Amino acid sequence: MSEINSLQVAVVGASGYVGEELAIILSRHPNIRRTKFISRALGGTAAAAHFPALRGRTEEVFVAPSAEAFADCDAVFFATPHAVAMHSAAELLESKIVVIDLSPDFRLRDESVFRKWYGDHASPHLLSQAAYGLSESARDTIKNANLIACPGCFATAAELALIPLAAKNAICGAPIIDAKSGVSGAGRRADRPDLLFASQNENFKAYALDGHRHAPEIQQAVAEFGGKIPPIVFQPHLLPSSRGIYASVYIPLQSETDCAAAIRDHWKGEIFIDVLEDGVPELAQVAKTNRAQIVAHSLRPDLGLVLVALDNLQKGAAGQAVQNMNIRFGLPEAAGLDGARRIP
Amino acid sequence: MSEINSLQVAVVGASGYVGEELAIILSRHPNIRRTKFISRALGGTAAAAHFPALRGRTEEVFVAPSAEAFADCDAVFFATPHAVAMHSAAELLESKIVVIDLSPDFRLRDESVFRKWYGDHASPHLLSQAAYGLSESARDTIKNANLIACPGCFATAAELALIPLAAKNAICGAPIIDAKSGVSGAGRRADRPDLLFASQNENFKAYALDGHRHAPEIQQAVAEFGGKIPPIVFQPHLLPSSRGIYASVYIPLQSETDCAAAIRDHWKGEIFIDVLEDGVPELAQVAKTNRAQIVAHSLRPDLGLVLVALDNLQKGAAGQAVQNMNIRFGLPEAAGLDGARRIP
Amino acid sequence: MSEINSLQVAVVGASGYVGEELAIILSRHPNIRRTKFISRALGGTAAAAHFPALRGRTEEVFVAPSAEAFADCDAVFFATPHAVAMHSAAELLESKIVVIDLSPDFRLRDESVFRKWYGDHASPHLLSQAAYGLSESARDTIKNANLIACPGCFATAAELALIPLAAKNAICGAPIIDAKSGVSGAGRRADRPDLLFASQNENFKAYALDGHRHAPEIQQAVAEFGGKIPPIVFQPHLLPSSRGIYASVYIPLQSETDCAAAIRDHWKGEIFIDVLEDGVPELAQVAKTNRAQIVAHSLRPDLGLVLVALDNLQKGAAGQAVQNMNIRFGLPEAAGLDGARRIP
Amino acid sequence: MSEINSLQVAVVGASGYVGEELAIILSRHPNIRRTKFISRALGGTAAAAHFPALRGRTEEVFVAPSAEAFADCDAVFFATPHAVAMHSAAELLESKIVVIDLSPDFRLRDESVFRKWYGDHASPHLLSQAAYGLSESARDTIKNANLIACPGCFATAAELALIPLAAKNAICGAPIIDAKSGVSGAGRRADRPDLLFASQNENFKAYALDGHRHAPEIQQAVAEFGGKIPPIVFQPHLLPSSRGIYASVYIPLQSETDCAAAIRDHWKGEIFIDVLEDGVPELAQVAKTNRAQIVAHSLRPDLGLVLVALDNLQKGAAGQAVQNMNIRFGLPEAAGLDGARRIP
Repeated sequence: MSEINSLQVAVVGASGYVGEELAIILSRHPNIRRTKFISRALGGTAAAAHFPALRGRTEEVFVAPSAEAFADCDAVFFATPHAVAMHSAAELLESKIVVIDLSPDFRLRDESVFRKWYGDHASPHLLSQAAYGLSESARDTIKNANLIACPGCFATAAELALIPLAAKNAICGAPIIDAKSGVSGAGRRADRPDLLFASQNENFKAYALDGHRHAPEIQQAVAEFGGKIPPIVFQPHLLPSSRGIYASVYIPLQSETDCAAAIRDHWKGEIFIDVLEDGVPELAQVAKTNRAQIVAHSLRPDLGLVLVALDNLQKGAAGQAVQNMNIRFGLPEAAGLDGARRIP
Repeated sequence: MSEINSLQVAVVGASGYVGEELAIILSRHPNIRRTKFISRALGGTAAAAHFPALRGRTEEVFVAPSAEAFADCDAVFFATPHAVAMHSAAELLESKIVVIDLSPDFRLRDESVFRKWYGDHASPHLLSQAAYGLSESARDTIKNANLIACPGCFATAAELALIPLAAKNAICGAPIIDAKSGVSGAGRRADRPDLLFASQNENFKAYALDGHRHAPEIQQAVAEFGGKIPPIVFQPHLLPSSRGIYASVYIPLQSETDCAAAIRDHWKGEIFIDVLEDGVPELAQVAKTNRAQIVAHSLRPDLGLVLVALDNLQKGAAGQAVQNMNIRFGLPEAAGLDGARRIP
Repeated sequence: MSEINSLQVAVVGASGYVGEELAIILSRHPNIRRTKFISRALGGTAAAAHFPALRGRTEEVFVAPSAEAFADCDAVFFATPHAVAMHSAAELLESKIVVIDLSPDFRLRDESVFRKWYGDHASPHLLSQAAYGLSESARDTIKNANLIACPGCFATAAELALIPLAAKNAICGAPIIDAKSGVSGAGRRADRPDLLFASQNENFKAYALDGHRHAPEIQQAVAEFGGKIPPIVFQPHLLPSSRGIYASVYIPLQSETDCAAAIRDHWKGEIFIDVLEDGVPELAQVAKTNRAQIVAHSLRPDLGLVLVALDNLQKGAAGQAVQNMNIRFGLPEAAGLDGARRIP
Repeated sequence: MSEINSLQVAVVGASGYVGEELAIILSRHPNIRRTKFISRALGGTAAAAHFPALRGRTEEVFVAPSAEAFADCDAVFFATPHAVAMHSAAELLESKIVVIDLSPDFRLRDESVFRKWYGDHASPHLLSQAAYGLSESARDTIKNANLIACPGCFATAAELALIPLAAKNAICGAPIIDAKSGVSGAGRRADRPDLLFASQNENFKAYALDGHRHAPEIQQAVAEFGGKIPPIVFQPHLLPSSRGIYASVYIPLQSETDCAAAIRDHWKGEIFIDVLEDGVPELAQVAKTNRAQIVAHSLRPDLGLVLVALDNLQKGAAGQAVQNMNIRFGLPEAAGLDGARRIP
C-alpha cells in the first residue's frame, strides 16, 4: 500500500471516451505517483501513442490484465463496458485493492433488476458490498468502501435534482426527467453511423422510448439518499454536442414546498455543486470540469422544475470517479479536478 | 388582382432569418410571378445583394413601404418583429390585399392577453378577423381569410401534438411541453453575444423560466382546433443547432386512450405531417423542408409522450406561411415547398 | 427507351451519403418517371424505410442487381465505392443504357495511373470511352456519351479554379490547392471513430499528407479542358461541418494576368457557377444546392488566389450527376436542381 | 513587490473571450495570490457574476482603472482591444509594474508600420522597449522585460512554423500561410451577425483578402528570431469551431533542406511545443491547453509543408501571456497551465 498522498493506480479500458478522460485527469493529479494502463488488445502499445493528450506525460506501456499487473496498485478503475468489472472485482478485493467501477456492473443492488437490464451477473454476492458513488451523498460510505460503483451520467444529474426534494418528502407525483446528452455519452462506437458527425450535426432526437437502464438506477439512488418517491419517467435525447448532460426535471410537489430552498440547503457548501440563485445552468459553463450547475424554479405552487447541467465525462463519469478516489484515500476532495469552488 | 396561378407578392422585413427563408422559397415558387421586397432601411439596395441566395434570381430592388409599393400585390407577407404588421394591416385589407403575418401581432384573439405579453395593440378590432394559420387545422378558414396570422414555431409543434388528443377529450392533466429550438429561432440579433457561435457551440440551456409568449398562443389554438385542456406547462431550451424545433410533450391521459392511434388518425392524409409508426422524429430529417415528423408513445397507461420535429424557419414560419398562401389562393398546397409526401 | 422528358432510372449504392442525396434529388425531379433502387444487401427493403426523406414519396423496394432490374432503365447511376461500376458498365452499355458513375472508376484515362491509386481495373478498355463529367466544360461530350464519369468533389472545386487560367496559359508555377472538406466527404463509414461527432466537433485537421487520389484527376482534367500546367500541390483537410468543399487555390501567374477577369469570362453565363465580384464564397451559401461560388483575387502581380465553395454531395457528387443526366437527355440543365441562377 | 512565488496581478478588459480565459487560468494558478479585475464599465460588479466560471472562486469586484487600483500589483494584463494599453503602459512602467499586453499595441517595432494597420500610436517611444513575447524564442528577453507584447494568435502559429527554417536560411521563396481560426478569434462582437451560431454553423469562408494585421507581425518576428525571409502570403479563414488556430504553411525551400529535422531540432525540449513524428496536428488535441502541435512534411524536395495547431485563447493569447508571466517572475514555466509535456 502506498503513502496516502502518493497513489499508484491502474486503468482498465482504453478504447472509450471515459477511459481517455480518466487518463488525462490522472496524469495531472498531484497525488498520483503512477498510472498503469491495462488492456489485452493494446498490450505493448505506448499509452502516449494511444492517448494523444498524454504525449510527453507518461512512459507507460499497455499491459495485459494479470495479478502481477495489479499487484502494487492502491486502486483499479474500470472504464469498461458492462460485464468486465464483475469478473475481476472479487480477486482484486481479496488482494486489498480498491475497485472503482465506472461501468454499470455494481450500480444496482437488486440482482433481478440487474438481470432485466444487463443480463446475468457474475458476482451477485458483491452487489450489496458496493458503495454507490454519488460523491456528495455517499461520502461516509465511500470513505470505507473497497468497491465503489460510480453512477451513470444521466443518473448523476437526475439524482442531484431529486434527492433534496425526496429528502423533504415533498414529491407527490411521478417526476418527469427530460434529459439530453452529448454524443460522447453513447461511447466511441464504430457500429453507429448515426453518431457520425455528418449524421448528428444540426440534428436532435429522442431515443430509448421503451426504457433506459439509468431509470432503475435513479429510482434506487433517490430512495437510498433521499427517500422513496413515485416511479419516475425518464426520457433521454441526443444533443448535437460532444459533451454534456442536461436534465430538465418536472416534479409534482406538495404545495407548500419551497423548491429552490430545498435544493440550496441540501447542497450547501458542496464545492462541485453550483446552485444558482438566478439564471440557468449551461453546458458551456461546466464543460471539461467536475462541476454541476443546478437551479430550481417553481412553475406552479405544486410543480417544480429543477435544471441540472454537468459534463458527462467528468462529473458524470471520470471526474466523479476521481472525486471518489480522493474521498476514499483521504485526499483533498478537489485534488486533480477542475471546476471546484473554494468555499471559505 | 392577378390570375390565380400567377401571383404578385411583397415581403416586408428583410433583416431576419425568416425573411430570408421566405425570399428563397418564393423565388423558387412556380406560381409567383413577382416578389417585391419592402424595407425603409434598405431602400435602393438590390435584393440579390442583400440575400446571397437570390444572386442571379431576381432584379428586384428594395423599396420603402407605400400604398404604391403594395398597390398591385395579391398578398403581403410580414416577416417583421411584433408591432409592425398591426400598423399596416388595416390599410392593406381595405385595398383588398391579403395580409399574411408571420409576426405575433394577430395570433392572439384576446386583446388583454396580447397586451400582457406584447403591449398595446394598434388594431385590436382586427384580432377577431384574423385566421390563425395552422394550415392543417384551419384550411377552411384560411381559404376565405384576408388576414392570416401564422403560428409561432414552438406553437406549431406543440399544437400538432396536442390538438388530436384534445379533440378526443383525452387530456386529463396539465401537459408538459419540453421544447428545444435551434439558434435561428432567437433571430439575427446583434445584441445577443450569447447567440454567437463561440458562445453557443457545445452549449445547451433552458430559458424563459418565467413564461414564454407562445404559451397563451398554444392554449388558445388547442382550444380552438381540438378542445379545452388544462393549463399547459411550456419550457423552451436553446440547442447548439442553427435550425429546428423539437417538442417532447408529456400528456396525462384518460387511461383508455390509444395515443398513437389518435395522432395517426387525426393527421391522416396530411402531406406535410409525417406520422411515424416506429422510430423517432429527428431534426435532420425535416431540416430545410416544410415537413413535420411526429410520433406518439404510451409511457404509461395514463401518460403519453408525443415527439414533434420541424424546421423552425419552414413549417415553423416561412414554409407554413407559403402553405397558407397556397391554400388561400387555391394553388396546390405543396407548390414551392420541399418535403411534401405524395399520398396516392 | 423512354420519352425524352420522362425517364426511368436506377440507383446502385444505397448505403452512403451520396446515394441518399441522389435519391432525394431524383424524387423531386420533374422529368423522372420512376427511380429504382438496386442493392443486393437491401433486397426486399422498402426504399422509404431506408431513406427517411423518401417517406411517402416512393413505393419502390430495393431489388438485387440483374439484367432484368436494369432492362427498362434509361440510365443507371452508380453511387458506390470504387470497383463496382467497372464490373457492370460494359453490360449496361451493350444494353444501350446510359451509365452515370459517381465513383472514381472511370475518371482517369490512363490505366497505369488508375492502378497506382486504386488497383487493377476490370474494364480498362472503357476508360477512353468515358466522358469526364465536369458539366460546364464537357457539355458537348456529355450530350453524346453513354458512359459519364462524374468528377470527385475536391476535383470539381479545384478544376473550376484552374481551368480558366490554364486556358489562358497564365499558370507559370505549381498551384497550391489548400482544400477543406465536410465530414460527409469521408463517407458513412462505420470503421472511422475519428469521424464520430464527439471526435470531430471543435476539431480540424489535415490528412493524406502523402498524396490524395484526386490529385491526378485534377491534373488530367485541367490539361483536358484548360491546358497543361505544372504539377499541382493538393492538400486536403477535414472541417467540423457535415457538408461542403472549400478550395483556396494559390496560383503563380504570368505577371500580366487579370485573374478575376479570366475566371469571370470563362464561366460567364453558367447558371450553376456564381462568380462573385466582391465578397468571398461561403459554404453556407451553397449548402444543399448545386451552385458553386467562386472569386478570384490578385495577392500579388504574379500570384492569384482563387476561392471556390460548393456542396460536396450536390455539385461535388449527386447534383452534378443529375446535371449531367439533364445534359445527356436534352432536359433543361437545371431541372430538379436547387441553386440555379436564371440568367436573362 | 510580492514574494516571487506569490504574485498579485490585475486584468484590464473583461468583456472579451481572452479576458475570460485569462481570468480562469489565473484563478487556478498556484502562484497568484490575488487577481484584481479592472473595468470602468463594470465597476462595482462582482467578478464571479460576470465570469460564471469564477463563481465561488473569487470575492473580487470590478474596479475602475486608477493608480490606486494598480498600486500593489506585480503585473497588469491588458486583454483589451488595441489603443487601450498604449495609453496606460508608461505610467505603470514608471511605477515598476510589469505590463503584459495581449493587444496589438506593442507588437510592431516600426511606428510607421503600426500606423498603417492600426492608426496613431500614443506611446511610440515604448515600441522599442517591448519584448515580443513568443515565449520559446524570447525567453531571455522576457526574463528582463517590463513591457511584454504577447503575439497574435495567427502570428504565434505561423512563427512556430517559419522560425526554425528561417534560422537555417532554408527559405528561398514566399511562404504561403493558409490559416484557419475558430470564431472566438473574432472576439465577442455584438456588431457581427455573421458570427452568430445560426450564420456560422455548417459554414466556412475566407476573409481579409486585402491583407491582415498579423502579416507584418509575422514578417517582423520571423526576421527577429529566425532570419530575414521573402515577403509572406497570409490568408485567414473562419472555421465553424469556437476555438483553435490551424496554419498550413507551404514553404519553398533550398532543395537540400530536411524540413522535419529543422523543426524537431529547433523546438527540442520545449514543454509546450509538441513536434509530431507522424500523424497530423488536430485542434481537438490542443483545445483548452497551452500546447501547440506541429508537424513538418516534405511535399517535394523544394517545398515543405508545416502544419501547426494551437488554441487561439490559450497558446494564442491568455495561455502564452501567463507563460510569459511565469518566465518573467522566475516561476515554473508551466505553472497554472494545461498541456505541458513533462520532459525527463
